[in-house]
Amino acid sequence: MAELFQDLFQARTVEEARTIIGGHINIGGIEKVLLLESPGRRLAEDVRALDAVPGFDRSTMDGFAVKARDTFGASESLPAYLDVTGEVLMGREAVGNIGTGQAWRIPTGGMLPPGADAVVMVEYTEELDDRTIGVTRPVAPGDHVVRCGEDISPGARVLSAGQIIRPQDLGLLSSVGLTEVAVALPIRVGIISTGDEVIEPGCSPAPGQVRDINSYALYGQAAACGAKPCIYGIVRDSYELLLDKVRQALAECDIVLLSGGSSVGVRDVAHKVIDSLGFPGVLFHGISIKPGKPTVGAVVDGKPVFGLPGHPVSAMVVFELLVTPLLKYGIYRNNPLEFPVRARMTRNMRSAAGREDYLRVRLYKDEEIIVAEPILGKSGLISTMVQANGLARIPAEKEGVEAGEYVEVKLI
Amino acid sequence: MAELFQDLFQARTVEEARTIIGGHINIGGIEKVLLLESPGRRLAEDVRALDAVPGFDRSTMDGFAVKARDTFGASESLPAYLDVTGEVLMGREAVGNIGTGQAWRIPTGGMLPPGADAVVMVEYTEELDDRTIGVTRPVAPGDHVVRCGEDISPGARVLSAGQIIRPQDLGLLSSVGLTEVAVALPIRVGIISTGDEVIEPGCSPAPGQVRDINSYALYGQAAACGAKPCIYGIVRDSYELLLDKVRQALAECDIVLLSGGSSVGVRDVAHKVIDSLGFPGVLFHGISIKPGKPTVGAVVDGKPVFGLPGHPVSAMVVFELLVTPLLKYGIYRNNPLEFPVRARMTRNMRSAAGREDYLRVRLYKDEEIIVAEPILGKSGLISTMVQANGLARIPAEKEGVEAGEYVEVKLI
Repeated sequence: MAELFQDLFQARTVEEARTIIGGHINIGGIEKVLLLESPGRRLAEDVRALDAVPGFDRSTMDGFAVKARDTFGASESLPAYLDVTGEVLMGREAVGNIGTGQAWRIPTGGMLPPGADAVVMVEYTEELDDRTIGVTRPVAPGDHVVRCGEDISPGARVLSAGQIIRPQDLGLLSSVGLTEVAVALPIRVGIISTGDEVIEPGCSPAPGQVRDINSYALYGQAAACGAKPCIYGIVRDSYELLLDKVRQALAECDIVLLSGGSSVGVRDVAHKVIDSLGFPGVLFHGISIKPGKPTVGAVVDGKPVFGLPGHPVSAMVVFELLVTPLLKYGIYRNNPLEFPVRARMTRNMRSAAGREDYLRVRLYKDEEIIVAEPILGKSGLISTMVQANGLARIPAEKEGVEAGEYVEVKLI
Repeated sequence: MAELFQDLFQARTVEEARTIIGGHINIGGIEKVLLLESPGRRLAEDVRALDAVPGFDRSTMDGFAVKARDTFGASESLPAYLDVTGEVLMGREAVGNIGTGQAWRIPTGGMLPPGADAVVMVEYTEELDDRTIGVTRPVAPGDHVVRCGEDISPGARVLSAGQIIRPQDLGLLSSVGLTEVAVALPIRVGIISTGDEVIEPGCSPAPGQVRDINSYALYGQAAACGAKPCIYGIVRDSYELLLDKVRQALAECDIVLLSGGSSVGVRDVAHKVIDSLGFPGVLFHGISIKPGKPTVGAVVDGKPVFGLPGHPVSAMVVFELLVTPLLKYGIYRNNPLEFPVRARMTRNMRSAAGREDYLRVRLYKDEEIIVAEPILGKSGLISTMVQANGLARIPAEKEGVEAGEYVEVKLI
């Protein structure tokens, strides 16, 4: 019990937090959607091709379908003369057979006639009369031909469960004739703000009041991941009111985020509520990052509940690290391209060893090099996130970065 | 006239193509949307803050509001003793005044009472009794305080017309009390496939037929940019039919894309149709890139019309270069982060000088370095785009890249 207590209050690394939460979650469902509704959705099952694509040998050039060996040795000074005995019509089956010494006209995309094994580009032919061409360059078997099944072979797994459907994947799904796909349901994210000082954006703040920033920033982040965010509004600093609201959100959503109140009082209430919801409950208090340390991670009956820091910058950083992967993939999974941009720091920045630092940076190009200029300012200032277009990660083992050093950045 | 003819048929660089098209386009409109409908949309006008954020000096810590000078010289061995004469309630105006030698309890986010200019963290105080604290560390004026207007000053331009509304921008809009914003209408993209061999994805291809890939891949690309794509279906190889369809798409959309047919015959018909639509008409034939060279660029009454290459990879590459920027920003504008990832090539790749090459690459991490493995294969194979997750640009002045060299990549 003492050990458990200690574990709970020991700040976790991002990796540990992901592993701990990931070990308990079970969210999502599946639905079938039409092809045109599928872009950006996550595939729920592997996709296998039924047929070969293309379903026939196909010319990639305008020219003549030939037997390649009839062109061997051909040159401008000594063309290979072939009889033109047919023409491939676009979209039609090429019925017939090309014999030795024969050629058929063929358009790009046309079906190679039986007997042919290559295409001669029209640029390397000369038409002697309607029925005869001279070929001035040899072709090898397979030249200018896409083989039957060369794009996709029948039975092949062409897309994998869990991946997000990109534009090219849509093209692929179309090519294999799939007009419906099974995708994961969008993850429903319930967003609750807490704090007696927080008011709706449509209201005019009295002295001591501020408009709700976090609900909207988090809504935007969730929407950008293809999730279905829902704002549950602002709850006053009361255990009963907050418990009711969180229970409602948990019943209707897959993930619940609490944020907004930053005073010790509100935080205590939020922690108490999260603690009382169900099994396994709170899994850690605090992650060893800056900004974002005072984060509570919990799972209730398979659904993650996060108590996010009150400062908007901190809440957004924690969302990027702990919520974004879940919304995109439904699980935490290794993503080597999570921080894909390498940028050169414009100035020294200190950080404490033993914790990861996330710097707001403005990326721009300076003589072909992408540079990262840190945006300084308290983590309570949303304007610093607006000035930034990147989030740079300083690894826990470093005690800072120097001007000229490279950092890994995520675009925001 | 001869010069114009030559100009039209001279292959353009991507930059030239953007400049030429950009000089003639005039697309889009404006609508007002609610805050929660605005993420991902493009701001139609600058946003200025009416009020200061926060609207009052605000504590960033739980502790005591003080006059900083009352703490000067304080230490653990010689604390500064202050009378606790009040308490700031969260979300309430702090009415009253802090006199010399006095302190008020204040929560994180609370309003600094008149007379106070700093906050002492609770960790650096000791409570002697209900009415007296000892301060064990001095604070300077402004310590642990966000000043009125420090996040956003009243009247400041906080967001600029033309930018896309990101999650943090949503938070900012909320903080200044905007519940509606003027955004650009989503750009409507009409997509037309041509070719006698192309059939709908729901149909079973007879020999010689292939399912439509391009319409769907382009639809996905347009949707990913926040545009409103519309598929107009497959048009047979006929001038009249195609002209009718393109006219319909032009009447209903802001941009029209023709693609699919790759034979000379279909291309000729497509070019003839584009040429006959209106002023200024076709502006260039061909761009000096690979893949994607046989691209026709036109503008008709302010609306761009592109004749895209038939091969899916080529069509998608041209879309990324010439259509994506328009859909995102409504204009071509300089984007230094268009190819933001720097990756190390795993193998040599040749390219011809004088044309830009775009390589399909698979990015992955190899010992902390992002590497780019070229996906080889004909540009007619959609599966090569599916295997790729990046598009690497080889500048026109280079004759290839060597293994170990770095390239600039766009994630796809």
